Amino acid sequence: MTQLVYGKNVVLNLLKKNKEIDFLYIQKSRNDDDVLYLAKKNNISYKIVDRKVLDNLVNGNHQGYVAQIKEYKTYTIEEIIESIPQGKQPLLVALDGLEDPHNLGAILRTAACVGVDGVIFEKNRSVSLNSTVAKVSVGAIDIVKVARVTNLTQTLNKLKDEGYWVVGTDTKDAVDYRSVDYSMPVVLVIGSEGKGMRRLVKENCDIKVMLPMEGDIGSLNASVACAVLLYQIYSQRFPLK
Amino acid sequence: MTQLVYGKNVVLNLLKKNKEIDFLYIQKSRNDDDVLYLAKKNNISYKIVDRKVLDNLVNGNHQGYVAQIKEYKTYTIEEIIESIPQGKQPLLVALDGLEDPHNLGAILRTAACVGVDGVIFEKNRSVSLNSTVAKVSVGAIDIVKVARVTNLTQTLNKLKDEGYWVVGTDTKDAVDYRSVDYSMPVVLVIGSEGKGMRRLVKENCDIKVMLPMEGDIGSLNASVACAVLLYQIYSQRFPLK
Repeated sequence: MTQLVYGKNVVLNLLKKNKEIDFLYIQKSRNDDDVLYLAKKNNISYKIVDRKVLDNLVNGNHQGYVAQIKEYKTYTIEEIIESIPQGKQPLLVALDGLEDPHNLGAILRTAACVGVDGVIFEKNRSVSLNSTVAKVSVGAIDIVKVARVTNLTQTLNKLKDEGYWVVGTDTKDAVDYRSVDYSMPVVLVIGSEGKGMRRLVKENCDIKVMLPMEGDIGSLNASVACAVLLYQIYSQRFPLK
Repeated sequence: MTQLVYGKNVVLNLLKKNKEIDFLYIQKSRNDDDVLYLAKKNNISYKIVDRKVLDNLVNGNHQGYVAQIKEYKTYTIEEIIESIPQGKQPLLVALDGLEDPHNLGAILRTAACVGVDGVIFEKNRSVSLNSTVAKVSVGAIDIVKVARVTNLTQTLNKLKDEGYWVVGTDTKDAVDYRSVDYSMPVVLVIGSEGKGMRRLVKENCDIKVMLPMEGDIGSLNASVACAVLLYQIYSQRFPLK
């Protein structure tokens, strides 16, 4: 399985890390820079093409660079748990039906920045790891371990058995996110953009937290809410000295 | 208020200036050119239609291109300052060259949720208020007061004279965002996605704050960073009881 990713920084990051780029398309007039230099250096096949060729390949702002790569690596829950260094307080994020690739990309980026050990989502209910996700994640897609599971509720139950505390986010019947002690293994569950968490997922949360807010909007963008919560957890675990 | 404008050059100019195009109608057979390219690049919703549809929309030589534009209400800085209720601790957000409509929409949404009094950006350097921004903001575009100014540095200086504390966000030469006392009128400055704040804007900050982070990514999505900072300010001003 291959797929296309695009954007100068995304392609440059892949090249720097010597990731498996199958083929590289570079727009005419962009062919005198560091992307081409690295492509040549790493023996990567490439072609200089007209902008129209790139426009037809991807549906987004490619900035003159499109790379064809192998599918993104994913992990099993067991692999993720085993990879967490001893002594580190585990922190996972579970996404219950996220649909917007911009949100997934931004969540992966934040997850990389706060040292999240893994991001979990259901195979058939969420946006997949695609080129928009990769671009918005600015490379985090290759850093954060992602698990695609068949049944999120079952996975949460398994994590509970492993000693994880399942913290869901909701806009009602929930406590202020600042009142919770996150000094245990945590899996933070983020609901889908429109509908939040499904009932079964909700019922499997050990605790539900909410962000205080004013006015009529009533909820935050999913990646924004996730970030505020992750920084709260980070801040508790690594307090200001 | 929406209105229709038409003609290839008119539409092209609006697109180049990233003006407020709500929706774009392009005639079949015209759909392989730079208008479509820019529409896609700027995330503008469009539809390819028969000429008859356009003939019915406008009464003139549309040349195959009709744009529906919307003028979102904006305010002057003075109007925003005057509208802040007595006794409320003022909180403004200034965007220095934000380019992504998803980010602007998410920032407006968060701003509405934490009671930000106004969002400021420069007329010619930022993404404008368009339909993508409106959609991502889930209505906050009509709630949060927005000011479009000619020169952000001058505006920041004016706000300083009014007693505001200018808090910039940066990834270096900055203090941990948790170490700052935000109990004064604050204008939080968010830099552009790729480049951060411009030098002059930076020099006019009273203080620069950063978010602690791990790993190689090195920075957060602009709307995510803005939200974490706004919730820190909110949290200080409305502590957990």
